[in-house]
Amino acid sequence: MKDTFNPWEVLGDIDYGKLIKKFGLKELEELPKIFMENVLFRRKIVFAHRDIQRVLEAIHGKKPFVVMTGLMPTGKFHIGHMLLVQQLIFYQELGAKIYIAVADLEAYNARGQSLEESRKIALEEYISNYFALGLKKKNCEIYSQSDRSEDGKKSGAYYGLQNLLARHITFNEFKAVYGEITPGKMVASLLQASDMLHPQLREFEGKPLPVLVPVGADQDPHLRLARDVSQRIKTPRFMQLSSTYHIFAPGLGGGKMSASDPNSFIAMDDSPEVVKKKINKYAFSGGQATLEEHRKLGGNPDVDVSYQYLRVFFEPDDKKLEEIYRLYKQGELTTGDLKKITIEKINNFFKVHQRKLVKARKEAEKYFG
Amino acid sequence: MKDTFNPWEVLGDIDYGKLIKKFGLKELEELPKIFMENVLFRRKIVFAHRDIQRVLEAIHGKKPFVVMTGLMPTGKFHIGHMLLVQQLIFYQELGAKIYIAVADLEAYNARGQSLEESRKIALEEYISNYFALGLKKKNCEIYSQSDRSEDGKKSGAYYGLQNLLARHITFNEFKAVYGEITPGKMVASLLQASDMLHPQLREFEGKPLPVLVPVGADQDPHLRLARDVSQRIKTPRFMQLSSTYHIFAPGLGGGKMSASDPNSFIAMDDSPEVVKKKINKYAFSGGQATLEEHRKLGGNPDVDVSYQYLRVFFEPDDKKLEEIYRLYKQGELTTGDLKKITIEKINNFFKVHQRKLVKARKEAEKYFG
Repeated sequence: MKDTFNPWEVLGDIDYGKLIKKFGLKELEELPKIFMENVLFRRKIVFAHRDIQRVLEAIHGKKPFVVMTGLMPTGKFHIGHMLLVQQLIFYQELGAKIYIAVADLEAYNARGQSLEESRKIALEEYISNYFALGLKKKNCEIYSQSDRSEDGKKSGAYYGLQNLLARHITFNEFKAVYGEITPGKMVASLLQASDMLHPQLREFEGKPLPVLVPVGADQDPHLRLARDVSQRIKTPRFMQLSSTYHIFAPGLGGGKMSASDPNSFIAMDDSPEVVKKKINKYAFSGGQATLEEHRKLGGNPDVDVSYQYLRVFFEPDDKKLEEIYRLYKQGELTTGDLKKITIEKINNFFKVHQRKLVKARKEAEKYFG
Repeated sequence: MKDTFNPWEVLGDIDYGKLIKKFGLKELEELPKIFMENVLFRRKIVFAHRDIQRVLEAIHGKKPFVVMTGLMPTGKFHIGHMLLVQQLIFYQELGAKIYIAVADLEAYNARGQSLEESRKIALEEYISNYFALGLKKKNCEIYSQSDRSEDGKKSGAYYGLQNLLARHITFNEFKAVYGEITPGKMVASLLQASDMLHPQLREFEGKPLPVLVPVGADQDPHLRLARDVSQRIKTPRFMQLSSTYHIFAPGLGGGKMSASDPNSFIAMDDSPEVVKKKINKYAFSGGQATLEEHRKLGGNPDVDVSYQYLRVFFEPDDKKLEEIYRLYKQGELTTGDLKKITIEKINNFFKVHQRKLVKARKEAEKYFG
């Protein structure tokens, strides 16, 4: 994928200005109080946007709006995935209707994964965790790309839009997003654009309305494509999409969390022992080589994965987080101390979450089965 | 479109062998008696096939089979279009379930024609004439590509298949069919393949079964594409498509019937006066320059458009047709005589047909509206 950036660079030395300039995004500023009460916005984990003002206006005026996302049903659901779900829950509480596309056709076209396998993973890993994290079924529409099946008129509109959009995109635009393009990728890209745009159709929310698509910063090319094409099509008419951009939470080793390497992430159903082992053994440390040096020179929390997990996920209290930051930087807190805090925080969170997850898996089966 | 051949060449100097060799088709031979009772097969207007034997077996064993076709909802429905409809009716009487796709998404992607316009033309021109010609609504499924909407599960399966197929085709294969390829054409081609293949899905006829796609000979590249991709996809499994190939009926001037030139075709709702004028003024004649020469040298029925219309559409009696052929060739029948016979035949046919058409237009509106 082009325009990907190394998430580690962003985390270790966050140059929002550069990122924002590169993608032509806008910094998130002057957000309403309710946003600033959420760590994701307060700590600039969600750091940039396109056209968010019409979503803010809808929230302010209690007007309908949609928050749309897709999930790729591969691998385990891990803490990195929480970032997006927490945003969905935040917006749902503010009145958003939530649309979630299970990208099973994309998984087929990109990886050859069967629809059955996608369905299983979507249910057991993703949707269950969404519910366990607090997403409500009310005002939330979860569907598979392969089976947009409430009723036929709606299905036709959703897939018809995929087909109509094809007339308004060029091969070069696809290449700009995908680099090397195949028919499978192209078709998946068109369906993804339909995922983002179809809530505005008569058959769905009934008319053009604000649709926010929260994504990781590397996903902007998809947004640009959908935004461009949406304004070229004459019938139906679409309101321009809004989007926000969040950083990646780093993998344990400091790079990306990789589905194919379980030691690069913490899965939501990892046991306390596994969490302990993963943090202690694999979490990249910003500490010095020896305890003595650490006491003398201090650690670097900005590149320390445990610290980042606290910052992004597990320590909502700014004062406490700052204290940890300060003490680690001064060398008063050792890497061992920091890891211990992180392990405890994660396991406390998981204790409650994993209980909810058992119930949520049954619910998901019923809801989506 | 590549691999198009000049229909006039075919008619004037029918080299089936060459055509069949070029496309890798098989000649239609040893057909059951019921086929030979139909002028289309007896006169080799339908002249070649791929894999028709499994359709013949289904007919023989009274097993289910499907005949699938698509219609491009542009322009007037004219006598040239009858060729296909007569085949549909023939197979429907033999027990086929008929599937007809109104290619409104293809019309959008290829020509920018709105879905509303396509719907109107499909109804008023095509479907009405299908019914008036004798197609029964029973055991016949007519749908728009943009709105495959009996119920959601079915819709998802139909459009999902379009998406799944994308993984199994290369750009080069598209280029072989379309020459210059655009995203719109590519997507339309995938949907066309889904049109041909989806009857075999669980959600439609329930299992792999023989599907016959009768086409004009220039359409074979589309068939090849759908046949190739159908055998690459592992789930679901498809029985290989069957197809037959018919010649083009010539336009009045001897070339193609062209939607943009009303004097190149006879529309099904042309008045007797218009039919008379079109045949007298525009129908290409195989006669000699002067009456004297004609009496002496005779005419050439093989290139005479009036004669071809009798052969293909309006004179089912082989003896009578042969008599006309012989007399024209000997110069006993003049071009004026031949045109008069043809005008009379067409207008007799239209007198009944156009009465049916009034009723059929109302029916079509009810059925498809």
